[in-house]
Amino acid sequence: MQNKPLIFVSNDDGFDAPGLEALVRVAREFGDVKVVAPENPMSGVGHSVTSREPLRIKMIEREDGYERYACSGTPVDCVKLGEQTILKRKPDLMVSGINHGSNAAVNIFYSGTMAAALESAIGGVPSIGFSLMNFRLDADFSICDAYVRTIIQKVMEKGMPRGICLNVNIPSIPQEEIRGIKICRQARSKWVEDYEKRIDPSKNEYYWLRGKFELMDEGRDTDDWALRNNFVSVVPVHFDFTAHHALDALSAWEMDAVKEKQRT
Amino acid sequence: MQNKPLIFVSNDDGFDAPGLEALVRVAREFGDVKVVAPENPMSGVGHSVTSREPLRIKMIEREDGYERYACSGTPVDCVKLGEQTILKRKPDLMVSGINHGSNAAVNIFYSGTMAAALESAIGGVPSIGFSLMNFRLDADFSICDAYVRTIIQKVMEKGMPRGICLNVNIPSIPQEEIRGIKICRQARSKWVEDYEKRIDPSKNEYYWLRGKFELMDEGRDTDDWALRNNFVSVVPVHFDFTAHHALDALSAWEMDAVKEKQRT
Repeated sequence: MQNKPLIFVSNDDGFDAPGLEALVRVAREFGDVKVVAPENPMSGVGHSVTSREPLRIKMIEREDGYERYACSGTPVDCVKLGEQTILKRKPDLMVSGINHGSNAAVNIFYSGTMAAALESAIGGVPSIGFSLMNFRLDADFSICDAYVRTIIQKVMEKGMPRGICLNVNIPSIPQEEIRGIKICRQARSKWVEDYEKRIDPSKNEYYWLRGKFELMDEGRDTDDWALRNNFVSVVPVHFDFTAHHALDALSAWEMDAVKEKQRT
Repeated sequence: MQNKPLIFVSNDDGFDAPGLEALVRVAREFGDVKVVAPENPMSGVGHSVTSREPLRIKMIEREDGYERYACSGTPVDCVKLGEQTILKRKPDLMVSGINHGSNAAVNIFYSGTMAAALESAIGGVPSIGFSLMNFRLDADFSICDAYVRTIIQKVMEKGMPRGICLNVNIPSIPQEEIRGIKICRQARSKWVEDYEKRIDPSKNEYYWLRGKFELMDEGRDTDDWALRNNFVSVVPVHFDFTAHHALDALSAWEMDAVKEKQRT
């Protein structure tokens, strides 16, 4: 049985989230599955890592070809600690999710689900983050099955192109209305905040985050467009943040020359 | 006085960090300064955002042309809440830091300092993150002054190229040894973890994060190379994570075809 692929699963909604269960169900068709997921919901924690507090990890269940652990840290902690202490060897595939709610467009920045996939990918593991565009606790994740299966299968068959991971978002509509899988770029967008101010019983002000998604992109090749048009979006994501196109423009600023002038 | 530029400052080391004070000192040469920084040190929180707990913000000091606030949230919360409640209008410049320790290479992923700069840049504000490669509490931030001044001056003069912010790292060496400013790309690198396992008084295991930086990049055009060779590194950072070069390769996978075959 040593030839079975080893698949590492994590998420940001926590070790007992239904989206995780849905992802594990499909992942187990492809190999042995080990899950290390946060003890508590960790939505929106981005690439946060825990260094000032110690981490704990505990087994939740273990059966033939499947183990599940809960970790006290963030999704990125789960990847780092899980890969070192639970997995022992580099997994053949890492899948993260299935997240409750969109990680398309600018949402990728805040996403713990995608941070886990990115962290694993930085370490050289083929990684995929999956999200279903539905925040409801009773969301029907079974509509994801066919797409999760297809994409995992393709990645295992073709190998992940070097230096990337995949950000997969699935529209929450009846399966027969999904028009297929679309390879996309990340839509330019932002959240415009509008905090709600309240007064606590001690008469102190506090604020609740409240925001509105703003699309700044007319392209028909974006993940946002694909999802609005009933496609599953797949964005290849890399972890070189350099704006290569801007290197020349900045070099032309000749900042050292300025410095020299200031000195004389 | 309404024509004075408005400069927004944040960081991840907290509202009372010496690096913040050093940055404010230079920023005030360029305009009115408003600081919204975390109440508590928030190193390593990445792009984390607070939505399940309310946020609080309190004034620390106010004088002519300068205000400083502490916010209960993360660096990204400081930017979001600060820009809406304290700044009232879009700032002319946002600067983040000066961070204790490197945010070059893969460190940008975990950095709250750079997350704050990125968050502000996503919102359309010219933004710069500054870091000094020194973790010591008594680090001498004055060696940064000339470089912070030069770079702010150039950005205000030339305008920030669209869709980017700057990740500036400064080596912690005597000023006369710094060879100048170098425009670079982010070095390919990763942290290899080696958690330290301990046993608590109740006989339960816990783990402390411990890692080793691993460079996977021989280039002489990287931030890591520049810093090792006594240059100040400036990386233009963008917020489109799409691996554009991989779009064609993935499209060639024809994942829909696979899906259709499975259906029939």
